[in-house]
Amino acid sequence: MEIKYDFNNMMADFIGIENGISEEEINSLIKKCERIDTNLKSMRMRGEIKFFELPYQEDVVKDINDYADYIKNEFEYFIVLGIGGSALGGIALQRGLNHPYYKLLSKDKGGKNPKVFFLDNIDPDTHSGIFDVIDLKSSCFNFISKSGNTAETNAQFLIFIERLKKALGNKDIKKHVVFTTKEQNGNFRKIADEEGMKSFIIPKGVGGRFSVLSPVGLLPSAVSGININKLLEGAISMDKTCENFNIWENPAYMNGVLHYLFDTKKGKNISVMISYSDALFGIVDWYRQLLAESLGKKYSLNGEIVHTGQTPVKALGVTDHHSQLQLYIEGPNDKVITMLCVEKFKSEIEMVSHYNWIEGPSYLSGHSLNELFHAERIATEATLTKNARPNCLISLPEINEFTLGQLFYMFEIQTAFTGYLYNINPFDQPGVEEGKKFAYNLLRKNGIGNKKEEIETRKKKKYII
Amino acid sequence: MEIKYDFNNMMADFIGIENGISEEEINSLIKKCERIDTNLKSMRMRGEIKFFELPYQEDVVKDINDYADYIKNEFEYFIVLGIGGSALGGIALQRGLNHPYYKLLSKDKGGKNPKVFFLDNIDPDTHSGIFDVIDLKSSCFNFISKSGNTAETNAQFLIFIERLKKALGNKDIKKHVVFTTKEQNGNFRKIADEEGMKSFIIPKGVGGRFSVLSPVGLLPSAVSGININKLLEGAISMDKTCENFNIWENPAYMNGVLHYLFDTKKGKNISVMISYSDALFGIVDWYRQLLAESLGKKYSLNGEIVHTGQTPVKALGVTDHHSQLQLYIEGPNDKVITMLCVEKFKSEIEMVSHYNWIEGPSYLSGHSLNELFHAERIATEATLTKNARPNCLISLPEINEFTLGQLFYMFEIQTAFTGYLYNINPFDQPGVEEGKKFAYNLLRKNGIGNKKEEIETRKKKKYII
Repeated sequence: MEIKYDFNNMMADFIGIENGISEEEINSLIKKCERIDTNLKSMRMRGEIKFFELPYQEDVVKDINDYADYIKNEFEYFIVLGIGGSALGGIALQRGLNHPYYKLLSKDKGGKNPKVFFLDNIDPDTHSGIFDVIDLKSSCFNFISKSGNTAETNAQFLIFIERLKKALGNKDIKKHVVFTTKEQNGNFRKIADEEGMKSFIIPKGVGGRFSVLSPVGLLPSAVSGININKLLEGAISMDKTCENFNIWENPAYMNGVLHYLFDTKKGKNISVMISYSDALFGIVDWYRQLLAESLGKKYSLNGEIVHTGQTPVKALGVTDHHSQLQLYIEGPNDKVITMLCVEKFKSEIEMVSHYNWIEGPSYLSGHSLNELFHAERIATEATLTKNARPNCLISLPEINEFTLGQLFYMFEIQTAFTGYLYNINPFDQPGVEEGKKFAYNLLRKNGIGNKKEEIETRKKKKYII
Repeated sequence: MEIKYDFNNMMADFIGIENGISEEEINSLIKKCERIDTNLKSMRMRGEIKFFELPYQEDVVKDINDYADYIKNEFEYFIVLGIGGSALGGIALQRGLNHPYYKLLSKDKGGKNPKVFFLDNIDPDTHSGIFDVIDLKSSCFNFISKSGNTAETNAQFLIFIERLKKALGNKDIKKHVVFTTKEQNGNFRKIADEEGMKSFIIPKGVGGRFSVLSPVGLLPSAVSGININKLLEGAISMDKTCENFNIWENPAYMNGVLHYLFDTKKGKNISVMISYSDALFGIVDWYRQLLAESLGKKYSLNGEIVHTGQTPVKALGVTDHHSQLQLYIEGPNDKVITMLCVEKFKSEIEMVSHYNWIEGPSYLSGHSLNELFHAERIATEATLTKNARPNCLISLPEINEFTLGQLFYMFEIQTAFTGYLYNINPFDQPGVEEGKKFAYNLLRKNGIGNKKEEIETRKKKKYII
């Protein structure tokens, strides 16, 4: 049940030397890669890169499973409040492993309680809308923020607590709230401790975008019936695979090396990931954050200005054949394309034609929808390759907890590794701090900071239609 | 109720001459733009660009509204089968104008029949799943394909007809099917005529990505309770605005000119659109197709190889502040960013803190979620601008049929216009044809074409981990 990485169509042998990568180009990086490998392993040993250890936290997993059992018995709705790394992993797992119309499924068709909702934006109309479809009395709210201070999630906390108080009165609120936050300090930790509310810990050194295998992603998954133990087994299996320092045998390292080379040597500044599965589309969104925040950096580790980072683009096969493929095939050759595909779906849907007097339906008849889906992917791969557009394939034997665990862990290793290829820090995100300060100053009651004045000066605008 | 286009932060005055556009650069294109304007208007007069006329089809709209009333009375589920341009406009309208949890809404909270589903992919598990949540006996299926021959939609037709036959027996099927297809020829037209099934016409000369204001987008919208007359009024209002050949007063032309200049003169090959509204996110997806298929071209109108087209990237504010913003601010300066925002949401959500002993909640208390949402957008705009990242703003006074009508029509005009700036044909999509032939040959029963052999030869692969 191992996932497979096929990078033939990234190589000069298949798409030519102008747009493809040669073995020599890869091998020229071997020494650098070995140094990075050694460095990553030492940092891991010293406890400086904590996401590596998440699959091995047996006690935490037991605690989550026990608590999830309690939630399943008590509540009809489980609402996850978080943004960015606090939401994307959970959403990806939900979409990946549950029924495609999960929330609409009636009990007699296998629908289960609770229904898990994610609110990962602060759109007022969405927040107003959620109250029309949940019953507060049978809802549990999971507030997720590592710092405990994220403005959006703090705002949601105020809104939902106020509503809970109105609906339930003060004394019952406690059991409707569970926090996922760091062990010490921050608003959520303080409130959890002060009010005696349940909380799970995001370990120190695990950033949001590397937290899917912590309680951040595990609790909502367990609550919705996903087998989180199998998920972690998959991650452990990938950990073993990627122990190998040889880049030719390590899918995470090789995928990192190739993307790095395409960006820095071939001018391909766009990294497209196409999911050939509706269920895997959430993984693409999760990966999009991982890539953008980890590798999009102004400064190198030496403090030079570098402005690194491919721009991730998400796409869905075959839907986007009718939207983006024209551009991918005929537009500028500025992209590297990764296809995610599934060898065996849960269902096999046969096509039968009652209209054999016309050609279209008749050539499909006798085939399955699965075959059509597969044929279109193969055809796209061939067309891209013929047009010298680099593309690779990550294939899952099937979609289950074990294969998704492998995928998450592979991408995390790849991203950390690629950060050091660029000689940047893959674990920070300094660029978003300034915007946060701006927003804070716009809302702060006492004293208007300089940031606000700075914004005012920008208002002398003239170009408006 | 007019939408507004603010392009201050695209200009050299605000972000510097290295990354911004000067008035001189814009004015140097004026003659070319006037020629294109004249040409577009002549083509329109000669009936060569048909999307222009869609808002003026009163008879068609009446027919759609009447039929929608019938559907509302008869069915609980309305399932739209189409892909690309046959789905994206309808989805955007659905998401833009209906309740955010539309399908979960119970009758007592304003939920209405029928619930509209879009199946715009051929994932087997999604197709298997839909049967768990709809009742075939009270479902109507709208098959949309301009040619009538789209493989994916033909496949869906076979699958749903087979299920309908099993559930209902032959005689009742007719009223459960409605086609939206061209007037003559093609599988769907032939079947509709032969079986006497209801059909709507996609006018000749209206391509999928320009078809949202034809029955393609209008029928599903009307069925779900959207006021399609107001939508078309919005489009007509934008048509009037864009009659003006002066690019400084024409938002569609100016937005096109700026994107063209950023791509061709400033090396910014990525066009990001950030929706600051959950409801408008579907519009971004629709725009993404419009841009990619219209402008992503290998050949110019003179037959030279040009490989044009920015890559569209969709993003959601403020969610993606915690995912993509780091890259947008610190990564390569290779993007033009368009923000879509809403001045007045339907709801205003106040924040009240019961935890004034900690700072986070207390600075939010007394503000609304709307203010926080707005402050974060303003802050992001300021940060991008300070970092010389070009960004513009399209703001809607509120989200309703009229403003969405303006938006669709503005983007369509902009795209057609930009195509001629690039000197390419914005209305064709030759690049996807080859892939279709490949797929067809893979499935064809009689005789294996050369394309299949071509694919086989590509299988001699060695780079797999």
